[in-house]
Amino acid sequence: MIPILSVVGRSKSGKTTLLEKLIRELAARGRRVGTIKHHYHGPVAVDVPGKDSWRHRQAGASATALVSPDTVFVVRDAPAALSLETLTHLAFCGMDLVLTEGFKSGPMPKIEINRQEQRAPLLCGPTDLLAAVVSDWDTGAAVPHFGLEAVAPLADFIEENYLHAPGRPGLEILVGGRRRTLDPGIEAVFERVVRSLLGDSGDASAGPPIELRIPGQTP
Amino acid sequence: MIPILSVVGRSKSGKTTLLEKLIRELAARGRRVGTIKHHYHGPVAVDVPGKDSWRHRQAGASATALVSPDTVFVVRDAPAALSLETLTHLAFCGMDLVLTEGFKSGPMPKIEINRQEQRAPLLCGPTDLLAAVVSDWDTGAAVPHFGLEAVAPLADFIEENYLHAPGRPGLEILVGGRRRTLDPGIEAVFERVVRSLLGDSGDASAGPPIELRIPGQTP
Repeated sequence: MIPILSVVGRSKSGKTTLLEKLIRELAARGRRVGTIKHHYHGPVAVDVPGKDSWRHRQAGASATALVSPDTVFVVRDAPAALSLETLTHLAFCGMDLVLTEGFKSGPMPKIEINRQEQRAPLLCGPTDLLAAVVSDWDTGAAVPHFGLEAVAPLADFIEENYLHAPGRPGLEILVGGRRRTLDPGIEAVFERVVRSLLGDSGDASAGPPIELRIPGQTP
Repeated sequence: MIPILSVVGRSKSGKTTLLEKLIRELAARGRRVGTIKHHYHGPVAVDVPGKDSWRHRQAGASATALVSPDTVFVVRDAPAALSLETLTHLAFCGMDLVLTEGFKSGPMPKIEINRQEQRAPLLCGPTDLLAAVVSDWDTGAAVPHFGLEAVAPLADFIEENYLHAPGRPGLEILVGGRRRTLDPGIEAVFERVVRSLLGDSGDASAGPPIELRIPGQTP
């Protein structure tokens, strides 16, 4: 399961700058970081240099992908009720970590940035899964605090608490757009049953990757 | 399974223009069309109007998504060995049809556009799954031919031969990046087994959607 953490904070608190520093630090450590950001300011207008590149979308395609040897680029109509978990599952496979900018109301652990000069209490309340505060004062929250420039210690905190040890990733299961974890023993049985129903009788640890979608009613 | 068709043809044969017309025609019929295009000309440089929009990617994020209420926008490093089927599965969920521009070597049915003035034989040979030709002459291929402006008849042909009847979509299964279809009876059993292992004992037809990824070795 790809860990997802949300960087939240008031307007002008420095979320994007903190995220940039954190991405640089984690990328320098060899981590593949995915990010998700809201775009509030009207429709997303895209201009990709390259002849004809977006003529499909202009013509009315509901989704368009542009594929180059090193980059994939997708613009599409938003599915109804797209959860952060579903977006992570579909768009961020292979990442070690996904950081969101904003999404305070999501079900993910939060890192809140808060500056004394803004003279405002933390955005996150007791039910917001606050994991850490980045701040230049002691906000009083009972979670680890990191200075505004303490990017390496914050990256250490993230690696120690949220990133997986290297190795074979586990199963990723989403039910109704929410993640489902299975006990490790059950997970192994589940994988064997699915592989055998698909006629893949080989050693599970050397079997091919499987992607499955079962349609259903979004709750 | 979302049908995938590839529009192929020689350079300057009019692939993009044909695709634009076909997208317009199918979208006007209420079809959600996804498209995939190659970008050969160096790295994909993206400029999205909107302050700060791509600072994450610039900072070293391996993948970045921008989410607005109506549009999702993703740019990411290409996964190794990304098949058209996998890209369709991940990026085009909810589409009725995916049309690719190019990808002649892919395992999908092909629509080839060929103009007499180019004085060149068809690109597609006997093993290329040629499904139809769009042309201003009789190329001799033993598949339906459509005139260069016969977009509505071509859309009819696609709807009749490749698009699903409305209704609940079936399971989507990818094994090693290739689609796997199950007999309808087996598919129902498979869905019931997966749902029951996940503790979803409700009526299958009213159950929530499920996404599953089992990691493995790409063959």
